[in-house]
This record gives sequence, structure tokens and C-alpha cells, in this order.
Amino acid sequence: MSAPIEMTHPSSLDLRLSTVLAALADPARLRAVRALAALSESPCTELQHAAGLDISRSTFSHHQRVLREAGVLRVRVDGARRMLSLRRDELDACFPGLLGAVLDTTEERIGAR
Amino acid sequence: MSAPIEMTHPSSLDLRLSTVLAALADPARLRAVRALAALSESPCTELQHAAGLDISRSTFSHHQRVLREAGVLRVRVDGARRMLSLRRDELDACFPGLLGAVLDTTEERIGAR
Repeated sequence: MSAPIEMTHPSSLDLRLSTVLAALADPARLRAVRALAALSESPCTELQHAAGLDISRSTFSHHQRVLREAGVLRVRVDGARRMLSLRRDELDACFPGLLGAVLDTTEERIGAR
Repeated sequence: MSAPIEMTHPSSLDLRLSTVLAALADPARLRAVRALAALSESPCTELQHAAGLDISRSTFSHHQRVLREAGVLRVRVDGARRMLSLRRDELDACFPGLLGAVLDTTEERIGAR
């Protein structure tokens, strides 16, 4: 029997701007967040495809963890799949306008792939 | 004779969201940017005081360099002083709403000192 998956999410009370910005400060993670905003909830593998990220599964898994631990996204285990969703309402409440600014930035301004 | 001070600033064409977020992803730098927004142009030492940053001059100088190289602020040498100002219009044009979101976040959400 495998160990239960550790999948902690910070409470919205504990979300901090410096931590959220650090999580977003990577072109691959920015692209994942922007793709996820258009998908509502998405399996991990489909999100990676939708974001156009040509990286290894373990690298994408690392990015997902950084975003989860900062409070940017939520992971729900659904059988063998991990379903990802943005914590949009909480982010908007804690950091008004931040997610909107990330989504409104043009693609060529994101940063190098 | 001392060497001229190297003080490069990226062109607004070269500003990238991932780089700007990385520069902002630090509680001390966030506090400096928020204080600078209220001061328009400020000498380096006064800004550090206004931001309430109890750190060494060299650490503040490092933070100033990270923000300058990301395109967040401009440094103008005025005799022995370095005058800092936010590149607000350019940031607003490249990343609409981002600086506003940083300034609108409440103090307790910034991150640990």
C-alpha cells in the first residue's frame, strides 16, 4: 500500500504577496496559471498541454507544487488524476487586481520559454 | 579617479513579467516599492528609512539593483546621491494593473520582515 499523498494547501489567512509573486515569477508557471484560468478545473497533464509547456512531467510537477504551496492553485486527487484549479476568489480577495494583471499581460511580455 | 558608475536600465521594450515579479517577490523590495510610490523621487537613504527597512546599506543597495535591472525603478546619479523613482508609466503600460495590485495589498499581506 502506498503512503497517502501529502497535499497541503495554505489557508487563505496565510497567503502572502511576496510568496505568491515568487511562485508566479517563472515563465512556465505564468503560462500554466494563464491556461488554468481559461479551463476552470483541469487534469495536470491536460493543463501542461494547454499551456504549451514542453518540459518533463517531474518539472511540471515541481511547478505545480510551488504554485500549490504559495496558495495560487488547488489540487484535488480524483482517482489516478490530479485535478488543478486556480484559487481565484481567494487571490482576488487577498490581492485585488493581481491575477487580473497577470492574465491581462500580453503573451510576448511573459518572459522567455 | 574612480570608474564611472555603471547604471544600466532595461528599455521598456525589454520589460518582462516574470522578471518584474521576481524582483518584486521579496518583502523588503515590496516595501521599498510601496514607499517609493508615495515619494515620487527619493534619495536612496531616505527611501530605506521611509520603507522602514532595518537592513545594511549594502543589502539595500542589492535590492535597489535587482529592482533597477528588472525595470521597476530608475536611478539617477545626482552628485553623491542616488535618486530613485518608480518607472510607473512604463510598468502600467506593459503590465496593466500590476503596480496597482502591489500598492493596494494590505500591509499584513506583504510577507515577513
